[in-house]
Amino acid sequence: MDEFALIERIRAQLGGDAPEWLVLGPGDDGAVVRPPAGQDIASSIDSFLADVHFPARADAELIGYRCLMASLSDLAAMAATPAWALVALSLPEGDAGWVTALARGMGEAATAAGARIAGGNLAAGPLTITVSVQGWAPAGTMLARSGAKPGDAICLSGPVGGAAAALKQIDLAASKPGQLSPLERSYWRPQPPFSLAPELRSHASSGIDLSDGLLADLGHVAAASGVALHLESAAIPLAEGASLDDALSGGDDYALAFTTAHKPLMARSAVIGEVASGSGLHLDGQRVDEQGFRHFR
Amino acid sequence: MDEFALIERIRAQLGGDAPEWLVLGPGDDGAVVRPPAGQDIASSIDSFLADVHFPARADAELIGYRCLMASLSDLAAMAATPAWALVALSLPEGDAGWVTALARGMGEAATAAGARIAGGNLAAGPLTITVSVQGWAPAGTMLARSGAKPGDAICLSGPVGGAAAALKQIDLAASKPGQLSPLERSYWRPQPPFSLAPELRSHASSGIDLSDGLLADLGHVAAASGVALHLESAAIPLAEGASLDDALSGGDDYALAFTTAHKPLMARSAVIGEVASGSGLHLDGQRVDEQGFRHFR
Repeated sequence: MDEFALIERIRAQLGGDAPEWLVLGPGDDGAVVRPPAGQDIASSIDSFLADVHFPARADAELIGYRCLMASLSDLAAMAATPAWALVALSLPEGDAGWVTALARGMGEAATAAGARIAGGNLAAGPLTITVSVQGWAPAGTMLARSGAKPGDAICLSGPVGGAAAALKQIDLAASKPGQLSPLERSYWRPQPPFSLAPELRSHASSGIDLSDGLLADLGHVAAASGVALHLESAAIPLAEGASLDDALSGGDDYALAFTTAHKPLMARSAVIGEVASGSGLHLDGQRVDEQGFRHFR
Repeated sequence: MDEFALIERIRAQLGGDAPEWLVLGPGDDGAVVRPPAGQDIASSIDSFLADVHFPARADAELIGYRCLMASLSDLAAMAATPAWALVALSLPEGDAGWVTALARGMGEAATAAGARIAGGNLAAGPLTITVSVQGWAPAGTMLARSGAKPGDAICLSGPVGGAAAALKQIDLAASKPGQLSPLERSYWRPQPPFSLAPELRSHASSGIDLSDGLLADLGHVAAASGVALHLESAAIPLAEGASLDDALSGGDDYALAFTTAHKPLMARSAVIGEVASGSGLHLDGQRVDEQGFRHFR
């Protein structure tokens, strides 16, 4: 099956009617999008390499779902409304069944997030999935890592550590889409809290998605905001089957960490610590290093 | 050198002051862009694989320049003004010198096109460069492949075949940035005609960039527009050292093909044929197949 026939198979999986803002979808030199008036655009790119970021032998639909949702998670972290994604796929062989399942998983994730896959690129090479995601929010309302202020609470949108626990405890290459255990779901079905976006825009001071582990990611917030973050380990909500270490250093959760001084928002989140003047991360009163995953270390 | 240190080296190469519309540049979960009011956004993604899309042993600065400019070429084809690019880089080793040179070449290309590299991703893996590019144009003015009308002239923005000739005739891995021959420039320094964009928006009916060879790319225009394209081989402007076959089937030129009925625009372009009712490509009166490069054939 050649490149253009494969692309047709992929397009057939991308969901129903195009949204009104998608002026031109896949199949031209580029997609054309008409954002609502007065919006800023958030834009991010992530690569997922076989057997580095996902088990290559795993179910293609699960891989597709996870890669797209993990990418869209960056938009949740900025309190942006997901809009369009572009997908560059390189794979060793033009296996139509595999590619169709991958596209189906991506289409499901896009639909769940309210996003649309608007274009892509296909090449023969080592299995790699690169996703560019774009979203919008009213001008000036997006969250960055740099806005945390002393006195703010440090909050999580949900339990963490599940994906790292799944990686350690389960053969994820054997997972089946319709039969996922809670631990398998932690890894294969990340659920960035897109619905929190309006409230985060109004009331949060900073946000980041948890892709590299709580310590590494909150380390970025502390550095970018020029503050100290004091965490209480007992307050960190652990996913079923996860240890504290999975949560602190494991990564891959795609839950959201944010800071806020707004009581109602705190009340609906897990408050795991407090922002203070100073620098660095502090866990139960002790200064700690960032210990997240770094490539090339 | 670890991931974050490398990213710092890359950022240092990306050019001077950020444009006003770049609200938040590299270093957060995503970039934030504020497009001018009333614009549509064009958005495209391309992957470049070592020893498929460029010689892996070539000069990194040349590779960076070419990959970014070839990506931006999609925006020229839609008559969009280049704005921001995201770059996902996977490479086997964290070689700081190589990566810095690559980023320098990308920064040069971005500056030449009036674009800005607004974010990226770095991973350890097979050498692959994936670029997502975004640009804008007043709502409703972008070119697609589908607008060619019987009676329009088929035009090229410049000579073609040079990149294919260079691939055949030269060891491109030996090219040096400061000492490029005209043939080497054809390959390493693609020059999409960004300055034509305002005129194309007003007067062209379709556009496409020449990445897969004249026949394959114009075949897309004929199919998307539901027309026949009649080409005259003698009218096709050949780059120095290029054969007609290089131009027809070679690809990698990143010149622009467009259709128009506007005489002044024709006068400043190479008119290579005419749009007619019917279907398919016709060269010197004979029906021809598309013969461009396809992955997985």
